[in-house]
Amino acid sequence: MEFSSKLLENAVYEMSQLPSVGKRTALRLVLHLLQQDAKQTERLAFALSQLRSEIKHCKKCHNISDVALCEICANPLRNERLICVVEDIRDVMAIESTGHFRGMYHVLGGKISPIDGIGPSELNIETLVDKVKNKAVDEIIFALSATMEGDTTNFYIFKQIEAFNITVSTISRGIAIGNELQYADEVTLGRSILHRIPFEQSLKG
Amino acid sequence: MEFSSKLLENAVYEMSQLPSVGKRTALRLVLHLLQQDAKQTERLAFALSQLRSEIKHCKKCHNISDVALCEICANPLRNERLICVVEDIRDVMAIESTGHFRGMYHVLGGKISPIDGIGPSELNIETLVDKVKNKAVDEIIFALSATMEGDTTNFYIFKQIEAFNITVSTISRGIAIGNELQYADEVTLGRSILHRIPFEQSLKG
Repeated sequence: MEFSSKLLENAVYEMSQLPSVGKRTALRLVLHLLQQDAKQTERLAFALSQLRSEIKHCKKCHNISDVALCEICANPLRNERLICVVEDIRDVMAIESTGHFRGMYHVLGGKISPIDGIGPSELNIETLVDKVKNKAVDEIIFALSATMEGDTTNFYIFKQIEAFNITVSTISRGIAIGNELQYADEVTLGRSILHRIPFEQSLKG
Repeated sequence: MEFSSKLLENAVYEMSQLPSVGKRTALRLVLHLLQQDAKQTERLAFALSQLRSEIKHCKKCHNISDVALCEICANPLRNERLICVVEDIRDVMAIESTGHFRGMYHVLGGKISPIDGIGPSELNIETLVDKVKNKAVDEIIFALSATMEGDTTNFYIFKQIEAFNITVSTISRGIAIGNELQYADEVTLGRSILHRIPFEQSLKG
């Protein structure tokens, strides 16, 4: 691509550094901004810059937060002895939107993935184990992705805390509500038969 | 979506104002920036902000440029009496990359599209007609999209300049190089038969 303007070329280059944004998409986005009011670009630039420089991570659960202790950890009505372990903030948002969880979270910041160069020391695992060691926890719920990396991470953490006599559970896997059985993959379907629950319990949903 | 951080919410909102970027994509992009070095976000914010505040449009062809007269218009080796009319800067870049055009451009800034509220007065048509009136042009080549809006714009401009006795041409339409005939649409195929060229001429390409 040959640009008639260094400023444009630079903006397109920086935009194309975002994931799944190629040069062509970046050019389209930047030209769109040029057609809009200048204030829109200013607001975007300022919001990104301010976010990156001022954002904090909650000292307790490592969730993204504007203050040192996030809203969830600061809420006295929530059960701090029940901790749900998740990968990142999107999972916190997803679980919060269900309205079915009133405990605390612990955000790992990813999952163990040797192929991406992410080992246990890159994740917030030590602080979680500390919480267990300090007897601050009754139950830990693993809510990581149902992938090999997620399972590896679950198992790694489990090995470190199994001696401490707390309940360790994992969210249930199975056929998604509304899905047709014939389109489910065999592994999920097989697991959902193995881990079947009493029918009366399913009515409480 | 419920956010644990106002800063994050704000950045996601501004990012989602870009075309074809939804809230989820915006969140993914912003979280990506948070995981990268802070300098990357700074560079992006600065590049966008600088582009928007300092960019100019060439006073002669309306192309995006860092200076008052763009590189192409300032080049004495190019034929300024041959003008290629295009919609936007991307078309200039596409034609420049062919290496087959040594004239000047005139960037309209869009095409006439009543459905989007874009009339002739929103486009850089008057300055083009002025160039013709001032006898500064020998030939005008229309290189707009082969759509109804493109054709309408061509026709509108043609009506204003036809009295001035200059050559007005349009880029050829037809089967793209490398395409199989059986997959071409009937309109394109029909036109390419009507506008057939001497075989010997095709060997020169």
